Amino acid sequence: MNLKEVKQLARERMKGYCRVCKECNGIACAGEVPGMGGCGSGDSFKRNYESLKNIKLVLKTIHDAKNPDTSIEIFGRKLDLPLITAPVTGSSINMGGYLSEEEYSDSAVIGSIKANTIAMTGDSANPDFYIAGLNSIKKVNGEGIAIIKPRENSKIIECIRKAEEAGAIAVGIDIDGAGLVTMALHGQPVGPKTLEELKELKESTKLPFILKGIMCVEDALLAVEAGVDAIVVSNHGGRVLNHSLGVADVLSDIVKAVGGKITILADGNVREGTDILKYIALGADAVLVARPIIWGAYGGYDEGVKLVIDNFKNELKQAMILTGCKDIKSIDNTKIVNLNR
Amino acid sequence: MNLKEVKQLARERMKGYCRVCKECNGIACAGEVPGMGGCGSGDSFKRNYESLKNIKLVLKTIHDAKNPDTSIEIFGRKLDLPLITAPVTGSSINMGGYLSEEEYSDSAVIGSIKANTIAMTGDSANPDFYIAGLNSIKKVNGEGIAIIKPRENSKIIECIRKAEEAGAIAVGIDIDGAGLVTMALHGQPVGPKTLEELKELKESTKLPFILKGIMCVEDALLAVEAGVDAIVVSNHGGRVLNHSLGVADVLSDIVKAVGGKITILADGNVREGTDILKYIALGADAVLVARPIIWGAYGGYDEGVKLVIDNFKNELKQAMILTGCKDIKSIDNTKIVNLNR
Amino acid sequence: MNLKEVKQLARERMKGYCRVCKECNGIACAGEVPGMGGCGSGDSFKRNYESLKNIKLVLKTIHDAKNPDTSIEIFGRKLDLPLITAPVTGSSINMGGYLSEEEYSDSAVIGSIKANTIAMTGDSANPDFYIAGLNSIKKVNGEGIAIIKPRENSKIIECIRKAEEAGAIAVGIDIDGAGLVTMALHGQPVGPKTLEELKELKESTKLPFILKGIMCVEDALLAVEAGVDAIVVSNHGGRVLNHSLGVADVLSDIVKAVGGKITILADGNVREGTDILKYIALGADAVLVARPIIWGAYGGYDEGVKLVIDNFKNELKQAMILTGCKDIKSIDNTKIVNLNR
Amino acid sequence: MNLKEVKQLARERMKGYCRVCKECNGIACAGEVPGMGGCGSGDSFKRNYESLKNIKLVLKTIHDAKNPDTSIEIFGRKLDLPLITAPVTGSSINMGGYLSEEEYSDSAVIGSIKANTIAMTGDSANPDFYIAGLNSIKKVNGEGIAIIKPRENSKIIECIRKAEEAGAIAVGIDIDGAGLVTMALHGQPVGPKTLEELKELKESTKLPFILKGIMCVEDALLAVEAGVDAIVVSNHGGRVLNHSLGVADVLSDIVKAVGGKITILADGNVREGTDILKYIALGADAVLVARPIIWGAYGGYDEGVKLVIDNFKNELKQAMILTGCKDIKSIDNTKIVNLNR
Repeated sequence: MNLKEVKQLARERMKGYCRVCKECNGIACAGEVPGMGGCGSGDSFKRNYESLKNIKLVLKTIHDAKNPDTSIEIFGRKLDLPLITAPVTGSSINMGGYLSEEEYSDSAVIGSIKANTIAMTGDSANPDFYIAGLNSIKKVNGEGIAIIKPRENSKIIECIRKAEEAGAIAVGIDIDGAGLVTMALHGQPVGPKTLEELKELKESTKLPFILKGIMCVEDALLAVEAGVDAIVVSNHGGRVLNHSLGVADVLSDIVKAVGGKITILADGNVREGTDILKYIALGADAVLVARPIIWGAYGGYDEGVKLVIDNFKNELKQAMILTGCKDIKSIDNTKIVNLNR
Repeated sequence: MNLKEVKQLARERMKGYCRVCKECNGIACAGEVPGMGGCGSGDSFKRNYESLKNIKLVLKTIHDAKNPDTSIEIFGRKLDLPLITAPVTGSSINMGGYLSEEEYSDSAVIGSIKANTIAMTGDSANPDFYIAGLNSIKKVNGEGIAIIKPRENSKIIECIRKAEEAGAIAVGIDIDGAGLVTMALHGQPVGPKTLEELKELKESTKLPFILKGIMCVEDALLAVEAGVDAIVVSNHGGRVLNHSLGVADVLSDIVKAVGGKITILADGNVREGTDILKYIALGADAVLVARPIIWGAYGGYDEGVKLVIDNFKNELKQAMILTGCKDIKSIDNTKIVNLNR
Repeated sequence: MNLKEVKQLARERMKGYCRVCKECNGIACAGEVPGMGGCGSGDSFKRNYESLKNIKLVLKTIHDAKNPDTSIEIFGRKLDLPLITAPVTGSSINMGGYLSEEEYSDSAVIGSIKANTIAMTGDSANPDFYIAGLNSIKKVNGEGIAIIKPRENSKIIECIRKAEEAGAIAVGIDIDGAGLVTMALHGQPVGPKTLEELKELKESTKLPFILKGIMCVEDALLAVEAGVDAIVVSNHGGRVLNHSLGVADVLSDIVKAVGGKITILADGNVREGTDILKYIALGADAVLVARPIIWGAYGGYDEGVKLVIDNFKNELKQAMILTGCKDIKSIDNTKIVNLNR
Repeated sequence: MNLKEVKQLARERMKGYCRVCKECNGIACAGEVPGMGGCGSGDSFKRNYESLKNIKLVLKTIHDAKNPDTSIEIFGRKLDLPLITAPVTGSSINMGGYLSEEEYSDSAVIGSIKANTIAMTGDSANPDFYIAGLNSIKKVNGEGIAIIKPRENSKIIECIRKAEEAGAIAVGIDIDGAGLVTMALHGQPVGPKTLEELKELKESTKLPFILKGIMCVEDALLAVEAGVDAIVVSNHGGRVLNHSLGVADVLSDIVKAVGGKITILADGNVREGTDILKYIALGADAVLVARPIIWGAYGGYDEGVKLVIDNFKNELKQAMILTGCKDIKSIDNTKIVNLNR
């Protein structure tokens, strides 16, 4: 099984849900929610792609970074590369259902461990999906992170308790799910959070607490004030608010404001090793990856996921050689030129 | 009946006139006047689309705007959302004629009322169309606005008298129709207006008087000097002058010049709730919507129009949640980033 | 016969040479020289299109320019509009040959007169084509301008003598033909000119002398120094040098340098009345039109050419109404916004 | 045999490997490595194209450069034009194999000599390819340059010895091949070089030493410090690092830093004579050409290569006439306008 075969199988198994395009840029699938596309005209998905594409790399060949080290330490773990599998649910709703929710969740979580990194699991209008994710985390001795929808605080705290029982290494909420007004129709209302509510959540657990869905400096500062341990700069893959800025549009301003005070993850259209390098150069500590992981799972279960992540690792290493970065700490903004705006 | 079905029906019923494209951007229908396109190469329609697309939203999730209020007060009425149905005529000429002029007009006016907003009705080379609009307004007890072509003042004042008799809540002229030189061929000459002529029109009625088709600061200042009550920033959907600037190119300068002194409406390629939020953030008090209302009418008469407007309302509310706006007044230019120019 | 029919006939008669595209932008015909395209990758043709498209118009409706006057005086003649038919030869080579050289030339020259403007005629590797043009000029009592390729001065002066005999109202050279190295293969060498050579040409005749093919300030200043009467800002329709700047890129700088000292014509992708208005607003005294005239000739001989020009006149008038210009002198740079660069 | 026929034959013979597109811009072949495309999404290939396209030429016609001299002196040789054939290997791997490695190498080297310029030959995971190149160089009495992959220094020095024996006029390494991690799998590890390693290479030979693959000022300064004789500004045709800047993005900064101290060659999407002029205007001493040479070889062996180069010469001469450059030294940055960024 190689990556090309995995993608081909995924293409067949996700037919009608994802075309696994040569270039994954949000155009073909625009508006396909449910599905794999961005909401509305798909502009926020496309902007993630464009704003990242406008970050160019400075090729550099005279240096001694002959065998770069791609590993990082994060949440007390050493990972082979600065890549964490993003929380995704709804295998039957968004991906076509060739994999059951449990199969998808196991593929993502176990495949990530096999590739020496970790996965986040997600939450949904169907509360069973959250449990499926925790079950996968249990299978890898808790080496995963549980991300919960921005439900009422009491519900979130219940979910955090379950994650603690599963031995998860961290928890968090994807606060960018606040606009999923359809969840209220299923009796599962979600919404934005105030600073006070965030503080209550943070104080409810001893686990590191992550806030996913920060896209402006003001919110990043509030996240620091709330005491959370990490933020994920993310527009939810362009699936909640059309015409949002892209992650690469806002990341460096957020890093300028809160870098060093809080762990910063970037989640937006990471498709190649070079994309990881770009976000690190813009100031992120690590990135999340979603759609390529889904292709790996649909094309080859946990082994497919491992293949995808290993490929990212090789590409990242090659990109570090060609930009002169001997380790992740060496990747800074001298390695890129930002053509945005 | 849902929105997807309405659009599918509209697509069939408008065949040859409107493709109801996935993304309504003026490309496929370029030059189709009569029809639904922009004039010439369609550039002004396309620029409305592009300049609005270049306004990006700042996603924000830490706040207490959990249940935003989308309502506004305008022309002495409370509307459920800052959206007014735009004046459109020529069902048989521009839309294919599946609906008679009366059916279209009724659908737009009554559908708007059912969605708790109001419609403007239009005027044309065929004076019957103006009367059709007034008849629809009468059916909703005058809860509509009559927009008249920029004919000779004496003719306009006759039209205003009829609108007053119909009980309309406001009147106005779409002065951007000044270039419709073909109307003279039908014995219905139109043209631009001088300041003095505008004053005469304003003074001819006690109803609020609206000037539609302002695209520069100089004209906005003259509108204020003429004493009109509201302007509509509009390039007539790109249907009168090719290569015009887009509405989102000029709106904020106009707001800077006359904001607070006069009501400002924006009319340019509003297709989603996010588009309403953008124009409000640029300083408009409300927006006009044309093509999507036509799809609603052609796909489902007044109920189709109501569906379309209700969908805008839901989308706007979701967008307000995800940008942290608890009411329409809270929507300001901190909610957007302007990538134009 | 209407314009749509003329274009349809032209499309059929020019099959394999010109597609008469909905939008004439140099893409479909890129590299088709001979033919109607730009040379190489067609970039200079495309840039004429793009740079002009990036000039946007300021729609204005409050004013008293209700019946604009489109006429101008130039070379001692009053023209109905600031449009002169561009010099074009090679009907059989570039256009497919449905019209003989004489038929094309007559159509262009006589059609222009019928529309109350004038034409330039051209020159070519085949010297008969120059004579064909002069013969057409004779048929309209000399009311035309003879443009000669930048041959050796002695040859040019011979050609000027013939133009004088034909009664032409002005003569000139299209110095941008300097790069047509293939002409030397036919024993008709062409090339650039020095200041001294230009002076000799200017002094060789009492007719107004025109220099076509100026694309930089330095050359415009030299043209003034040489004493020529008019320059045409032109990159030869993108047919001699790939990757040239567009006419709308360079025009205003040239106007700043030599405006008022010399007549300035602009020749680059004029396709609608709005395009004329744009070039006038950038400082040109009048424009040249080539490809649309060819469509007129191929679709309807001199009557087709007249139709095309009359349509330009109507469009220009409508554009002047909608930008508030009561005459050509009123068209200045407050009427446009330049989005180039 | 003419150029059109050569390209048509190449198109047939390279089927599945190169489409010989009308416009060679990296889009159709994106990701085709092996093959002729750029790696990953092909962005670095595309950026070479775009950044060069954004350099526009200043058309100029009043001057005395009627018969420009396109020749240069470089590496002690006089060349008919500032174009050197780029080092390319892998006829069977990347081009489809209609030509054997030897046939390709001979075509490139001998064809270049026939056109009065010279070729570089390349190196590969298969060491036979390097030998094939040297054999071709021997056939033209050493009038060629051997470019070696950035192997271990001892291996490179062995290769240099062989080049000296073949009588090559210069040697060098394509250090941008440093990221070809797959070469290690074939027991041929490559990598970046330190300043000390470069000094050792330079000192190992009396031949001029060339460093190919410099894309930033810092590396250009190190190259000067290492004492190398020439650098090639190149991102390896976009085949090693996705999302690199384009050659035309970085060239002028590099020239500002080291121009005059070292020979500077530019290698990025040269497809027409105008492209040569652009890179010279940005400060290069000469350019490399790869893909068009391959088309020449596949379509007509050495005669095809000669045809391609002769065509470049004619186009360059025409471009020099139309920009007023009497020789290569006259080509400076007043001849261009840079629209990048």
